[in-house]
Amino acid sequence: MINFQTSPDRYRHWKLEISGRVATLSMDVQEDQTLAEGYKLKLNSYDLGVDIELADAIQRLRFEHPEVAAVVVTSLKPRIFCAGANIYMLGSSSHAFKVNFCKFTNETRCAIEDDSRHSGRRYLAALNGTASGGGYELAIACDEIYLVDDGNSAVSLPEVPLLGVLPGTGGLTRLVDKRKVRRDRADVFSTLAEGLKGKRAKDWRLIDGYFPTSKFDEGIKARVEQIVAAADLKAGSGIELQPLEIQSSDDSRNYKYIRVTFNRDQRYAELTVIGPEGPQPTTPDEIHELGDAFWPLQAYRELDDALLHLRVNEPEIGLVCVRTEGSLESVLEIDRTLASNRDHWLVREIILQMARVLRRLDLTAKSFFAIVEPQSCFAGNLLELLLASDRSYMLMDEQNSVAVSELNAGALPMSNGLTRLQSRFLAEPERVDEILDKKQPINTEEAEELALITFAPDDLDWEDEIRVAIEERTSLSPDALTGMEASLRLAGPETMDTKIYGRLTAWQNWIFQRPNAVGEKGALTNYGKPTKAEFDYKRT
Amino acid sequence: MINFQTSPDRYRHWKLEISGRVATLSMDVQEDQTLAEGYKLKLNSYDLGVDIELADAIQRLRFEHPEVAAVVVTSLKPRIFCAGANIYMLGSSSHAFKVNFCKFTNETRCAIEDDSRHSGRRYLAALNGTASGGGYELAIACDEIYLVDDGNSAVSLPEVPLLGVLPGTGGLTRLVDKRKVRRDRADVFSTLAEGLKGKRAKDWRLIDGYFPTSKFDEGIKARVEQIVAAADLKAGSGIELQPLEIQSSDDSRNYKYIRVTFNRDQRYAELTVIGPEGPQPTTPDEIHELGDAFWPLQAYRELDDALLHLRVNEPEIGLVCVRTEGSLESVLEIDRTLASNRDHWLVREIILQMARVLRRLDLTAKSFFAIVEPQSCFAGNLLELLLASDRSYMLMDEQNSVAVSELNAGALPMSNGLTRLQSRFLAEPERVDEILDKKQPINTEEAEELALITFAPDDLDWEDEIRVAIEERTSLSPDALTGMEASLRLAGPETMDTKIYGRLTAWQNWIFQRPNAVGEKGALTNYGKPTKAEFDYKRT
Repeated sequence: MINFQTSPDRYRHWKLEISGRVATLSMDVQEDQTLAEGYKLKLNSYDLGVDIELADAIQRLRFEHPEVAAVVVTSLKPRIFCAGANIYMLGSSSHAFKVNFCKFTNETRCAIEDDSRHSGRRYLAALNGTASGGGYELAIACDEIYLVDDGNSAVSLPEVPLLGVLPGTGGLTRLVDKRKVRRDRADVFSTLAEGLKGKRAKDWRLIDGYFPTSKFDEGIKARVEQIVAAADLKAGSGIELQPLEIQSSDDSRNYKYIRVTFNRDQRYAELTVIGPEGPQPTTPDEIHELGDAFWPLQAYRELDDALLHLRVNEPEIGLVCVRTEGSLESVLEIDRTLASNRDHWLVREIILQMARVLRRLDLTAKSFFAIVEPQSCFAGNLLELLLASDRSYMLMDEQNSVAVSELNAGALPMSNGLTRLQSRFLAEPERVDEILDKKQPINTEEAEELALITFAPDDLDWEDEIRVAIEERTSLSPDALTGMEASLRLAGPETMDTKIYGRLTAWQNWIFQRPNAVGEKGALTNYGKPTKAEFDYKRT
Repeated sequence: MINFQTSPDRYRHWKLEISGRVATLSMDVQEDQTLAEGYKLKLNSYDLGVDIELADAIQRLRFEHPEVAAVVVTSLKPRIFCAGANIYMLGSSSHAFKVNFCKFTNETRCAIEDDSRHSGRRYLAALNGTASGGGYELAIACDEIYLVDDGNSAVSLPEVPLLGVLPGTGGLTRLVDKRKVRRDRADVFSTLAEGLKGKRAKDWRLIDGYFPTSKFDEGIKARVEQIVAAADLKAGSGIELQPLEIQSSDDSRNYKYIRVTFNRDQRYAELTVIGPEGPQPTTPDEIHELGDAFWPLQAYRELDDALLHLRVNEPEIGLVCVRTEGSLESVLEIDRTLASNRDHWLVREIILQMARVLRRLDLTAKSFFAIVEPQSCFAGNLLELLLASDRSYMLMDEQNSVAVSELNAGALPMSNGLTRLQSRFLAEPERVDEILDKKQPINTEEAEELALITFAPDDLDWEDEIRVAIEERTSLSPDALTGMEASLRLAGPETMDTKIYGRLTAWQNWIFQRPNAVGEKGALTNYGKPTKAEFDYKRT
């Protein structure tokens, strides 16, 4: 079982150092500390375990070290920044694992950009040596890239020429869409195993600058000082993110605010979010004092862990029935507090974290059905769970209600840049404001009229309808459902993120199955072996 | 070998009838007239041969019947409009063929929308019976959909529940992006094998209206009359599209203006476009008189056929070296004539056809290298071939030039809605106008300064550099190249078209390889057999 929880004192592959307003995140991968058998993490290559630490570090920077204005991402290994995802790990992994590994690393890279975009921290890739493949993909997730000019160190994307796969963790997309490298140059660069160095790499927009070895540290330092001097970060002292407490059994995984139960025979899980209870903080100071125990932070951290667990450790679970338990009003109260204090750094970070977790759900390759019964609390931020679900079932009952809050109006955007209400009502955009104007709880009848829910069976049909829907869903081809959900969930505009998760990922997944990559004579299989890859040259 | 040329007198599966300003395109698939052995085209299901006729009919409508304002797409079979792509054909096809088949049908559906958008003709799907799968995907490519309300006929996308694949010919994308069906309803509809009928189909935005059987013809007729009455089509009499003359041998395929030679051992082809020669028409009347022999129409029709031939009949050819021969000035003269007469219906149609062929090139899964030598004519519309190529090589020679024309400024857009110059210069948008302002031919040195070309080797290096580039390219994994090119060619904004060709197609291609679809126990393999599909339920 893969554990997504860690903390800096347990990192094996990264060092996180804070000095004033500068954080240095140094990669120093321990080659024997792998998540699975059969490969060594040489040359700062990584497996999922390395990326779990990176994701944790970025998250902690935001909550624990809000004073940090510049993050230097570098390596402690001589002459190598990072060699990318470990090839032998990829070669020996199942298709499903490879795909989930790439999705998580993609989310981590998007989290860097999310931090940079919303929290004002700037990420510098200080490439003290070669950054190849996923190593360069990590670099281009940063705001700026500086490469040592030692006559040897290069940036490269050798996936196509050496491995017969894509730079699929955002690489190709960020090359042309973020760094806006000319497409013919992107073509040349992406087929050039040895990559490009110094001046040419800069001319081609692959890096932002280069320094000779003797001036590298100094050059980075000077740039970092500029960033810090220009930074406009208003943040107080951080809060600590404690480890989540999790009770696991064969058929359940329970947190304080999240309960997951597994119906393995039927290949579905019930995921219940427990709403906030009792008095809640209402001012930034009270929130800061409560820290990571504040309901929205704790509940969404737990939800995040539950989603990752479902993805990676529960591949046979195809459907998640999402429920909530609690008081609508308590959730709305939380949302009011968050909305009215969103200029405070901690509140902003909490909201941004909620948004990321909801996007993680949007991108999870499982079906989600929201089940709404009396005593549930699909209000405000938790209404997003219903809107993120592929369908919703709401018992026709006068006591059964959902509710909207200000957070449904833009604070929790999807990867396509729209709110979930906007995505839902592309055909009737006027609905969005109509719904946002509802100040009172919305009962089933009204929810149906407002087109907020999919089905509203009455008491007589309720259990049968849910049972049949679950049975039908879990009987379908899991692959067809993955492709269908990925297509239907993100209608409307596309962003760099949706291009990465949609177009690029889908192509990579395709290639990850092709005999030319993973067959006996495929390039990925043959990497590092004395045998040579052999291709079926038919173009598809 | 699959032949993409046909004409109405040779149609086996469609009838094209013109009556005044109304065309009726009726599907009546002959089940034994298949392109390959081993399946029958029952219930108006289709294979590539059926779609080649449809593509031809749409093309001919535009050139031969410009007076037509409304196109009714219907079926001559009782109770069935179209059952979609033939499952047994899909089940027995190679992966590469399936992918190319879907790409062509996608292009045909986009061609319907292109006609509707630019030429003002409206397409009505008159569903006199059930439209399922690709049948409904054809319907949603039309502007309006009317279904007979006979208690039985439905629209449906049964791919996911019955076949374990996607409605991958635009279906899922058009559902949420074009018809703006709510995503939860799209989810329900796409998992409901039997589909939806009448009122519910209309309420869910799947169709635009329905009529009882006895009123169906009358209802369609009334709507058609409204369209014709409102039409603002200014078109004279059509021109005839004669069959292309093609000389084929083992190692060549030659047209009047296109020469293709195959270097099979090295898996690449040379494709040369011959520019216009001699005096050319300059007025709409002269163009009309010359008809399909007018250079831009004939050359691009030939190019289109050559591209389709390369895709489907030459799968092992991985690289196309694009050359031109002729006079820059003659091409520019053509472009001036086209640009200054673009309000004339025929000139507009010719330009739109050129744009479609260039998009066909953008979407072709082969590498393209443009090779620019003296005596070539990469000017204006033919400069688009260079800009569409993955790379360009231009001999450093004072006599070697390319040139721009007004057609490079927006008349020939890519699927992403940008011009190829705009797509090239996302990082330096000011370059676009700088280049468009060049009224004189641009020699190699200047082309390099303007960032118009990729490489400019001198005479000494020229042959070696091209040879090595070809060898390197054709040695790479064809699958990785396909995914890479699909990612790099379409940077910048996304449109419904790019979503269909990128996201949806990539997912479908992935699924088309999965054992859950095409394995021994896969759903596609088992369709219609007494055995039942068995799935590996791991979610990926």
